[in-house]
Amino acid sequence: MKVLITTVPFGLIDRTPLNLLEKNKIEYLINPLNKRLTSNELAEIVTDFDVIIAGTEQITKEVINKATNLKMISRVGIGLDSVDLLAADKKNISVSYTPDAPAPAVAELTIGMMLSLLRSIHVSNSQMHSGEWYRFFGKRLSEVTIGLIGAGRIGIGVLRHLKGFGSPRILVNDIYTNQKKNISQEFDVEWLEKEEIYQEADIVSLHLPLTSLTKNLLQKQQLLLMKKDALLINTSRGGIINEEDLYSVMKSGHLNGAAIDVFENEPYNGPLKKIERCLLTSHMGSMSVDCRVKMEIEATEEVIRFASGKNLEGCVPMEEYEVQRLGL
Amino acid sequence: MKVLITTVPFGLIDRTPLNLLEKNKIEYLINPLNKRLTSNELAEIVTDFDVIIAGTEQITKEVINKATNLKMISRVGIGLDSVDLLAADKKNISVSYTPDAPAPAVAELTIGMMLSLLRSIHVSNSQMHSGEWYRFFGKRLSEVTIGLIGAGRIGIGVLRHLKGFGSPRILVNDIYTNQKKNISQEFDVEWLEKEEIYQEADIVSLHLPLTSLTKNLLQKQQLLLMKKDALLINTSRGGIINEEDLYSVMKSGHLNGAAIDVFENEPYNGPLKKIERCLLTSHMGSMSVDCRVKMEIEATEEVIRFASGKNLEGCVPMEEYEVQRLGL
Repeated sequence: MKVLITTVPFGLIDRTPLNLLEKNKIEYLINPLNKRLTSNELAEIVTDFDVIIAGTEQITKEVINKATNLKMISRVGIGLDSVDLLAADKKNISVSYTPDAPAPAVAELTIGMMLSLLRSIHVSNSQMHSGEWYRFFGKRLSEVTIGLIGAGRIGIGVLRHLKGFGSPRILVNDIYTNQKKNISQEFDVEWLEKEEIYQEADIVSLHLPLTSLTKNLLQKQQLLLMKKDALLINTSRGGIINEEDLYSVMKSGHLNGAAIDVFENEPYNGPLKKIERCLLTSHMGSMSVDCRVKMEIEATEEVIRFASGKNLEGCVPMEEYEVQRLGL
Repeated sequence: MKVLITTVPFGLIDRTPLNLLEKNKIEYLINPLNKRLTSNELAEIVTDFDVIIAGTEQITKEVINKATNLKMISRVGIGLDSVDLLAADKKNISVSYTPDAPAPAVAELTIGMMLSLLRSIHVSNSQMHSGEWYRFFGKRLSEVTIGLIGAGRIGIGVLRHLKGFGSPRILVNDIYTNQKKNISQEFDVEWLEKEEIYQEADIVSLHLPLTSLTKNLLQKQQLLLMKKDALLINTSRGGIINEEDLYSVMKSGHLNGAAIDVFENEPYNGPLKKIERCLLTSHMGSMSVDCRVKMEIEATEEVIRFASGKNLEGCVPMEEYEVQRLGL
């Protein structure tokens, strides 16, 4: 059994996942290009591997057709927008993921971004490092209306942290209704339509998967629905906000700030970097030591279960296949 | 009655304090230099004013001696390190302050700085704006030991916010013991000596007044007691950390990061700006709209009470005079 580990870094902070593979005599190769692979690069490398321990690179139908030995994909993380689940299914390739591990780290980064944006910490820091001194006025979390689009594992984590900051008005939207009752019992939130949230919230934060339904969810029209001095945060997936529209809308003076951790093409090096009040980070949502190590170990253990013919524990549920089948 | 308002901005976001003065027919002048005055500048301007609505500029014995009409100082904020209370007392000048209003804003900024430092948000942002992409590993608040030096109004606010992030180990030191019981009842904290906190905490955050006891509290020796990968936050007063020592210690590679909002001389334009992992902000602790407006209104109302011969409500307590008298 040969395993290709595409996600990097891997086993860097904690060697446990590599030790596990070695102990189980599983041969592995860590992504030799040390960056997110394009689907062409992946197709060239993947040929005779049985398993991919995958990051967010595109595992397309073409990649899957080239990977004639491939029997399993173990995603380090939660998003499945990068994997053609239907093509994998057709070839009888198992797909597992680690949906719980990254959530706490993403939720904390989101709060950090809210506070940076509210108080202009990022702008003041860059000005101070250039020798400029300007005292920005800001707002506190307990003074603003917060809107969360998506209330899954990460959205709920954000709600939990917000409890420690008083009781602002919190608006929530989620297409899945099964959690609504539980969330409403634990938190004081209002359920609104997305468009209402765009209009009423001072901070809009996205906690959604990337699907054909959420792709380009926020284009110029939606961004302009937001208050002129509102703040926008995306720690979920690039592509949900149209980056060109965000750039032109912010360039025109709309929105007081934005914090973007995820991009359509990563590494990102696009025009948003010209906007000082746009806080940019390098897809670091899940990059806390504990969460990252947990994700890597869980994804590796799943590979070992697969190799030894045991039942898998992180199989991607049928609904995720439905989302792709129905183009949701 | 003529009032000199030295702190700027004033009445900018909310004109209420100026309206109050006008309604009460109190003549005022807002700091014509629109920056923090030196004590020489203040001594020149203050000559015939009866009242100062003061920021953090130095109101020294020399200033007080020049201000032959001065009867009252109303501090917008909490720190009294800038006011020579003994010289004021000798001339029978009343001193009031607004100790409660800024605390919530400072506490929130502190949490924002903790999250920025833990996840390298500030470093990633500055790299991304230069077109560099590097994914930093970070830690979550629930993985680290937090040390608070000072557990007054602001320290308690920080403790309250931290509750929403799980239960890390929290170490606290305060020279005043009267609050210990209340704090220990509300929060799960350990009371340690300052030196123990420097050695054991992953994040050290200062919430102290500047007095002769706290001046240069953290010099090279104390900074080197801290863990090599620790983080240091100062949102209290410049001068408590020796800036030159902090610069040389960080330049040598010690400390993973620092967040400094307050400086010995403001506006700051010193060598810390050369250290990328040092997050710098421009004394913005109290600069949330709600807190700043509250401070300005409270300080103005106190002036109006004074002008109309009513009892003052924000008189600086005797202990603050003792601190200066005994050189504490």
